[in-house]
Amino acid sequence: MQIAFLLYPGFTALDAIGPFDTLSRLPGAETVLVAERPGPVRNESDTLGLVAEAALTEVTRPDIVVVPGGADTSGVAKPGAVQEWLRAVDATSTWTTSVCTGSLILGAAGLLKGRRATSHWLALETLASFGAEPTGERVVIDGKYVTAAGVSSGIDMGLTLLGRIAGDRTAQSVQLLIEYDPQPPYDAGSPEKAPADIVAEWRATM
Amino acid sequence: MQIAFLLYPGFTALDAIGPFDTLSRLPGAETVLVAERPGPVRNESDTLGLVAEAALTEVTRPDIVVVPGGADTSGVAKPGAVQEWLRAVDATSTWTTSVCTGSLILGAAGLLKGRRATSHWLALETLASFGAEPTGERVVIDGKYVTAAGVSSGIDMGLTLLGRIAGDRTAQSVQLLIEYDPQPPYDAGSPEKAPADIVAEWRATM
Repeated sequence: MQIAFLLYPGFTALDAIGPFDTLSRLPGAETVLVAERPGPVRNESDTLGLVAEAALTEVTRPDIVVVPGGADTSGVAKPGAVQEWLRAVDATSTWTTSVCTGSLILGAAGLLKGRRATSHWLALETLASFGAEPTGERVVIDGKYVTAAGVSSGIDMGLTLLGRIAGDRTAQSVQLLIEYDPQPPYDAGSPEKAPADIVAEWRATM
Repeated sequence: MQIAFLLYPGFTALDAIGPFDTLSRLPGAETVLVAERPGPVRNESDTLGLVAEAALTEVTRPDIVVVPGGADTSGVAKPGAVQEWLRAVDATSTWTTSVCTGSLILGAAGLLKGRRATSHWLALETLASFGAEPTGERVVIDGKYVTAAGVSSGIDMGLTLLGRIAGDRTAQSVQLLIEYDPQPPYDAGSPEKAPADIVAEWRATM
C-alpha cells in the first residue's frame, strides 16, 4: 500500500501533515512525498520547506493519492505535469483524496465531474465550475474520491479513511496515539459558527 | 515577534505543524525552523524531512519557543547543544511551549520544575521525574510555560496562545481560516474515551 502526498510550491503544511500523521500509521503502508522535482518544496507563505522524496515520474501507481490545498492553487490547477500526473495515477488509485483547496486541483484535472465534493469554505462554490456538486460537509466520500474541508479537516479525513481501509479499531488506535480529542478554545471553526464580521472579512479578501 | 520551532531527528511532524499553521498566522510574526544544523531534519518514522532554516547558534532571542515531541526524545533530552540552547533562549522568551513529549525535553532542561505541565498521555507520569506536576489537561499554562498533550493538541495550543497574545478575535479568525471545526469519526482520542483494550495495548508498548 503506497500513499503519495503531492507537494507543490504554495501548499499549506497542515493540509499535508494532518493526513500524513494519520494515514502513515496504517500498518504496512509506505508513504512518499512527491513533487514535480525532488527536494524542498516551499509552503504558501514561503516560511517552510518540506522535502519531496520523489519526482512525479517516479511515482506511477500509488494506492492512495493525497492532494493538499494552498492559498493559491492556480499554478497547479492549470494544464501541466501535475495535472497529467493526477489523471494518470487516478486511473489506478484505490482512493484519490484532497484537503482544502486541493479539491480545486482535482477538479481542474477533471476528476470530480458529477461527484459530491467539498473544499475550504471560501472555495466551496468554485467546485461547481469543475462539474462537481459542492457539499458543505467536513469529509465527503463519493466512490473512491474523498475530499475534506479546510486545512485542519485533513485529520478527520485521515481517520475516516483509516476506518474504511483497516477498520474502526485501527482508526481508533491511531486517534488515541495522536491524542485527537479536540478542545478548541473557541467555537469559530466554520462560517456558520464564527462571528459574522470575521466571516465577512475573510470573504472580502477573496 | 519571532517564533522558533525546534526540530531534531525523530520529531513528530504534526506536533510541529499544528502550532506552526496556527501561530505563524499571527500578524507580524516571523517564524524560524531551527535545528542543531540547518537542512532537512527527519521525523520519527524517517519518512519525512522538514527543512531547518537556521542553526541553534543563529537563533538567540526568539519570543516564542515551540518544542515538538517525538516517539523517542532521549537523544535531545540529554545534556548537549539542544538542552543548552533551550535554557539560553528560555532566559529571554515570552513563551516557552511544547507539544506532546516535547515537555519531556523542556523538563530535562530543568525548565518545568514546580510547574503544572502536560504531555502525551503515555508520557504524562514521566514529567514528575523532572519536578513538574503532571496535569491531564489538553493545554496547560503555568506562567510563561505552555505545554500541550499528544500530537494533535498543538492546534488547540496554538489557538489558545494566539488568543492570549493577540486577543480572541485574531484567534477566532485563524480558527475559521484553518476551518478548525473538528468532527472526529470516532470518540477515542483520550485514554478515558478509547476502548480499554486499545489503551492497554498502547500501554504495553511502553
